Amino acid sequence: MSEEQRAAIHQLLRDAPFDLGGAVAIQRPRLEEMLTAHPLPDDVRTSTGELGGVPVVFVDLAGVDAAGVLFHLHGGGFALGSAMGSVELASGLARRTGLSVVTVDYRLAPEHPYPAAVDDVVNAYRALLAREGGSTNVVVSGESAGGNLALELLLALRAEGLAQPAAAVLLSPMTDLTVSGESYRTKAAADPNITATAIRTRVGDYLGGTGVDPADPRVSPIFADLTGLPPLLVQAGSNEVLLDDATRLAVRAAADNVAVILDVVPGVPHVFQAFAATLDEGAAALDRAGRFIGSHLASATS
Amino acid sequence: MSEEQRAAIHQLLRDAPFDLGGAVAIQRPRLEEMLTAHPLPDDVRTSTGELGGVPVVFVDLAGVDAAGVLFHLHGGGFALGSAMGSVELASGLARRTGLSVVTVDYRLAPEHPYPAAVDDVVNAYRALLAREGGSTNVVVSGESAGGNLALELLLALRAEGLAQPAAAVLLSPMTDLTVSGESYRTKAAADPNITATAIRTRVGDYLGGTGVDPADPRVSPIFADLTGLPPLLVQAGSNEVLLDDATRLAVRAAADNVAVILDVVPGVPHVFQAFAATLDEGAAALDRAGRFIGSHLASATS
Repeated sequence: MSEEQRAAIHQLLRDAPFDLGGAVAIQRPRLEEMLTAHPLPDDVRTSTGELGGVPVVFVDLAGVDAAGVLFHLHGGGFALGSAMGSVELASGLARRTGLSVVTVDYRLAPEHPYPAAVDDVVNAYRALLAREGGSTNVVVSGESAGGNLALELLLALRAEGLAQPAAAVLLSPMTDLTVSGESYRTKAAADPNITATAIRTRVGDYLGGTGVDPADPRVSPIFADLTGLPPLLVQAGSNEVLLDDATRLAVRAAADNVAVILDVVPGVPHVFQAFAATLDEGAAALDRAGRFIGSHLASATS
Repeated sequence: MSEEQRAAIHQLLRDAPFDLGGAVAIQRPRLEEMLTAHPLPDDVRTSTGELGGVPVVFVDLAGVDAAGVLFHLHGGGFALGSAMGSVELASGLARRTGLSVVTVDYRLAPEHPYPAAVDDVVNAYRALLAREGGSTNVVVSGESAGGNLALELLLALRAEGLAQPAAAVLLSPMTDLTVSGESYRTKAAADPNITATAIRTRVGDYLGGTGVDPADPRVSPIFADLTGLPPLLVQAGSNEVLLDDATRLAVRAAADNVAVILDVVPGVPHVFQAFAATLDEGAAALDRAGRFIGSHLASATS
């Protein structure tokens, strides 16, 4: 089945009207529609609220006595996407680990360039820490630009001496805003929906007018010293132009003595885990992510 | 406990009389003594034999109805080590997966330079394929130089159109005989027992007089096109000069659309899984390797 599944998703993405590099007023509703096209699973309960003054969506799974919290950051190139649009993916992770979810509506560019999103993420996490009374059963996750923000959150926590989460899961993270990965070239034909041009547009939104260099480690974690970060799981597809953002992050983390697992799945696109309902590789990757998370929760026995 | 465990193993390796780059006549018995210093677990049954004319050690675990075979290649820089010396490590992997083990006494350099070892490994594997009637429940593993031979085996199978194993597990593989990894420099102070000089000595033994360039993909798999290889698990410690041999292999595999998991454990040395009996990180890494293997056997349900 899987080869057919992969082909179907590749075609679906090729045909989709969504354009990551397009005008935000048009692309925001299109992405939202794609992400919320089918109803959430019956066991998913959502409610909106705030943490540290930042709007969030709380997600609970029926019948789950949550052992901890997944603090999730959605993707969308810093300019698109929403907490609600990430609920299906985040709840897929949470279901495999018996966690509840907080997914964050950080402020988006270009209306709110850097550091608005990072500030929101740090403030929401800080409030979560206070609510939970610690971080040993908190896991951070992020997809694409959300993976970037997740890493910048961990670096900010280190800088401020705040407690790191038990672990972090990064799905196709965007780690290099200089857009220098060789995979932008080598995977261009294989990637059904992301281009270097689109990424550059969104980086322009995020950094425009800020004077911050795209190579600054505060926005490109691949150029940061990662020493002291918690265990990281980095998943990516081999059919994405952002592949090298994932692999180089893992190599950097390993060099800096961080516990890191890089998990690359062949023939699948950017954030392929979002297609877990119809793609076996997506479900299997979430299974592995779930085991990774489970092994790092304070309640873990091994 | 683990920080104490890591420190104890670091000191043990620092103090060991074994020198990877020393004279083979002296170092072979020293390494053998280190590897066989304590008795094998009670459930391990070994017998010597041959496969395809190549001497091997067969390992069975008491009470295990083996679901397949682990084809294991020991380390020792192509010039040291033995099948019997690798039984404890290989049986640790096999115990976690319900496999039997074949561990291969391939010919050693300098008496038998390249391609003797690769030829032996290919011949033994080919005989195993015939005996098993296929490869769907065969998994290949290798440590250090054995990881190099494991990869060269997979490349040889691809070239000859023979069946790939279900998966391969590479523990601290030596993948670049040009000794060019940056970690030779950055991890020199952290690595308790391996140096670039020692590796160069052993590479000289392996390639001496053959006219084969160390950058030849037939001896340095990092320079090969890895397309078509089976799923790979690559484990390494962050305290080893060979770290970059592992990370660059994983990056190459990902670029070539191979399913690959890179798993780097901080603060532990080369082939730290060999210390699983006294190092929690070693046992946990073997647990993860066991789950990886289990997920790729033909009998796997997910």
